[in-house]
Amino acid sequence: MPAIKSIHHVAVLVDDMQKSLSFWRDALGLQMTDLRDNPAEQAQIAFLPVAGSEIELVRPTSEDSGLAKYLAKRGPGMHHLCLETDDIEAMLAQLKAQGVRLINETPRTGEDGRKYAFIHPESTGGVLVELYQFAVV
Amino acid sequence: MPAIKSIHHVAVLVDDMQKSLSFWRDALGLQMTDLRDNPAEQAQIAFLPVAGSEIELVRPTSEDSGLAKYLAKRGPGMHHLCLETDDIEAMLAQLKAQGVRLINETPRTGEDGRKYAFIHPESTGGVLVELYQFAVV
Repeated sequence: MPAIKSIHHVAVLVDDMQKSLSFWRDALGLQMTDLRDNPAEQAQIAFLPVAGSEIELVRPTSEDSGLAKYLAKRGPGMHHLCLETDDIEAMLAQLKAQGVRLINETPRTGEDGRKYAFIHPESTGGVLVELYQFAVV
Repeated sequence: MPAIKSIHHVAVLVDDMQKSLSFWRDALGLQMTDLRDNPAEQAQIAFLPVAGSEIELVRPTSEDSGLAKYLAKRGPGMHHLCLETDDIEAMLAQLKAQGVRLINETPRTGEDGRKYAFIHPESTGGVLVELYQFAVV
């Protein structure tokens, strides 16, 4: 049976990256390992690992992306919770069998080979949940 | 210097505990280690550990608590992010020195000796952040 292995990251949607970093990095003292543009998501993302997990600060870089619209509607704050699984296909099949509404019924594959899929907040109690499986190397 | 050691938990505000458990416990397969009433918070809380972290499902048990009002206003979803620190007093002093707005300027102490304090979302980019220090035994 597929299992959830960890909280891979918590994504925080931000409107001002420097102001956000002044809290998460400078005041809290978290280390930022990377700050990069993600053209596919039309966003700039800061990565701040915490133990075996990560806080990701996500700033929309266009005004018409899904992220930008979410930010405009709901304001900054926690956006989604990403859980690492050891078998994303099996997990998606298990969720579907239990009637869970999926945004991605089959996993998407990132450039680096990682697989991910989103679960609809309607089935989770209002939380946008991402499933993530590391690339098999 | 005080440090953040882990994401202690992600708190999810729910309006229907059984429906939420049917997703997080039954469909995802997370283990629920406890389900108990927290009279101080006027809430019922389900604890679902994930690796060194935890997902907590929080259901308000009264209609006039802060949690109940938040739920009525914003709907169910992620409520706060709790970070474990090794020295909460020093961390609060560090944050205050950097101009971060604190909800609790001195830590509160739970019945079991743990210390906690909340940081205002205004200073974090919209995230209600809890700091947590395990009880020293």
